[in-house]
Amino acid sequence: MGDQFAQSELGMVPALRWEEPPEGPVLVLLDQTRLPQEEVELVCTDVQALVAAIRALAVRGAPVLGLAGAYGIALAAARGYDVLEAADLLAHARPTAVNLAYGVRRAVAAYEQASPDQAAAAALAEARALHAQDAAASTAMAEYGGRLLAELVPGGGYRILTHCNTGALVSGGEGTALGVVMAAHRVGELRRLWVDETRPLLQGARLTAYEAARAGMPYTLLVDSAAGSLFTAGEVDAVLIGADRIAADGSTANKVGSYPLAVLARYHHVPFVVVAPTTTVDLGTPDGASIEVEQRAGSEVTDLAPSPLGTQAYNPAFDVTPPELITAIVTENGVVSPVTAESLAAVCGQTTGQPLA
Amino acid sequence: MGDQFAQSELGMVPALRWEEPPEGPVLVLLDQTRLPQEEVELVCTDVQALVAAIRALAVRGAPVLGLAGAYGIALAAARGYDVLEAADLLAHARPTAVNLAYGVRRAVAAYEQASPDQAAAAALAEARALHAQDAAASTAMAEYGGRLLAELVPGGGYRILTHCNTGALVSGGEGTALGVVMAAHRVGELRRLWVDETRPLLQGARLTAYEAARAGMPYTLLVDSAAGSLFTAGEVDAVLIGADRIAADGSTANKVGSYPLAVLARYHHVPFVVVAPTTTVDLGTPDGASIEVEQRAGSEVTDLAPSPLGTQAYNPAFDVTPPELITAIVTENGVVSPVTAESLAAVCGQTTGQPLA
Repeated sequence: MGDQFAQSELGMVPALRWEEPPEGPVLVLLDQTRLPQEEVELVCTDVQALVAAIRALAVRGAPVLGLAGAYGIALAAARGYDVLEAADLLAHARPTAVNLAYGVRRAVAAYEQASPDQAAAAALAEARALHAQDAAASTAMAEYGGRLLAELVPGGGYRILTHCNTGALVSGGEGTALGVVMAAHRVGELRRLWVDETRPLLQGARLTAYEAARAGMPYTLLVDSAAGSLFTAGEVDAVLIGADRIAADGSTANKVGSYPLAVLARYHHVPFVVVAPTTTVDLGTPDGASIEVEQRAGSEVTDLAPSPLGTQAYNPAFDVTPPELITAIVTENGVVSPVTAESLAAVCGQTTGQPLA
Repeated sequence: MGDQFAQSELGMVPALRWEEPPEGPVLVLLDQTRLPQEEVELVCTDVQALVAAIRALAVRGAPVLGLAGAYGIALAAARGYDVLEAADLLAHARPTAVNLAYGVRRAVAAYEQASPDQAAAAALAEARALHAQDAAASTAMAEYGGRLLAELVPGGGYRILTHCNTGALVSGGEGTALGVVMAAHRVGELRRLWVDETRPLLQGARLTAYEAARAGMPYTLLVDSAAGSLFTAGEVDAVLIGADRIAADGSTANKVGSYPLAVLARYHHVPFVVVAPTTTVDLGTPDGASIEVEQRAGSEVTDLAPSPLGTQAYNPAFDVTPPELITAIVTENGVVSPVTAESLAAVCGQTTGQPLA
């Protein structure tokens, strides 16, 4: 597809879709590594192919990884593969993203609770339920996020800085942080979306810019380290990011480069807001230090620049922002602010001791 | 030159050298845009070619730009071009780097003070004097910087984070910040040099990694936004950077991305040290707000990532770090710490009211 905007009138190719027979059963992914130049779909006929696609980041982003995990189980079940082996492979394809294991767990539970002849259908039904639930969560987060922005930035006309990609490509709906931005844009309240390019894999430059351009947003790209200059110039009203895992204390793992933005935002008294569904909250991980951060190949760093042969690179995929630097966490159940273990548990429905915003 | 380390036994090709007849008079530059893959020299036969090379960053870095400015005047004089016109072109080739205008001014003054038949020779002699002075300044900064590191990081074995490139490629000697690192490495006190790749033009990945590899330093490359993770992990003992212009109050313009490191360093109680000769201090610029920051083409950002067509980019070449975030400024005349207008003026020899470290 030579014209990258060819389908913009018709909406985006979905990040992921299930195909029934006679084409399927297969899971079809939009290959995000080839965006924005090409909209190419990857057809996964088995779990091995799906795991490879997840590792290569052909499909990435917290909520959609949950869907990939659940549909992966449905695929294994429909094709008669060993579902528990598939679950193990899928759940460990990437270590930091908690949604992946969550989606797998839900589909496996549905599979196991059904009678053998209904098990595959039950796994698929659960994947579809999670898909619908995620789309609804996007809508709810956009609503809560919009109300929060109106409070945090009186007068509207938001200038929002974001990092990585958190839109329709990562979700069954319009996304997490970018879903909030999209809703603000729709009502004419987005003055500027500042898009960090997001090294090393440039999800901001490739994917967020792609979604922003399609939506007709006023957006500007920058190298990650130029964000400091924007803060100094007073050009940022709020930072909005997604999350790959939120620990029980509110510590948030997200794409590397999020933490420096949180520190800059604090230094400049700018709100720093995490937008994530409660499926990204992992109450089983007590704190930031307990979050396993995926270390990826140094070649992701060195391949771009012609570094001297033998150059070693440090390449953590994520960093962890502590709760004291997070103004609020926006979930589909409400806004957590200030971020504490109690307020977070409450929004996840684990206790009811804490009122929600 | 296929083997990028072929000349390492013989030392590096100099960043800049003057060639007398019969080859010259010409100014020969090592084309830094083609490092580290190729060591290609650019021969400038006139000031227009030199200005183009400066704008394209074939030669870049504060001190060596001063030398380029001075030799550029010598070249114009030797070739019988209009020296004042050459001075105007050179001094405005890049707006933020103060050394460029300084080098031009010195060579023009020598040219004007000499008798007409000696003027060209006087300009060249002044360029050579500045060259020798800059080499001596490197040596003195390495000495003062080494003493400062020993105070700031008791026990030695320094883990130093740096940004952009500040070594022999930017200087008549071993450089500014990287000159200090080189000296620490030579005495076995460098445990790790963390090299920010330095988007958009990747001077860290291309040039600092090249110099570090040649010198046999233990170095590791990272994307700029992964520095936050290093601070969190306690892996940074000090940040050392150079400067493109230091205002009278100590505000320091340096490669974009320096300011976020200063904020992170402050948040993590890590020393943030600027290394620069007094020729980079511009007492005529009162403060950070008065520093003109060069805005470069957005294509430097968008060319790397396949962004959607029409994507606009924000691309400041520099940012400004205020004096309150700078632990010390190391100059060839001594260490300024704390950084105040008075201590800075004193080290520049403008007053003697302030004792030097």
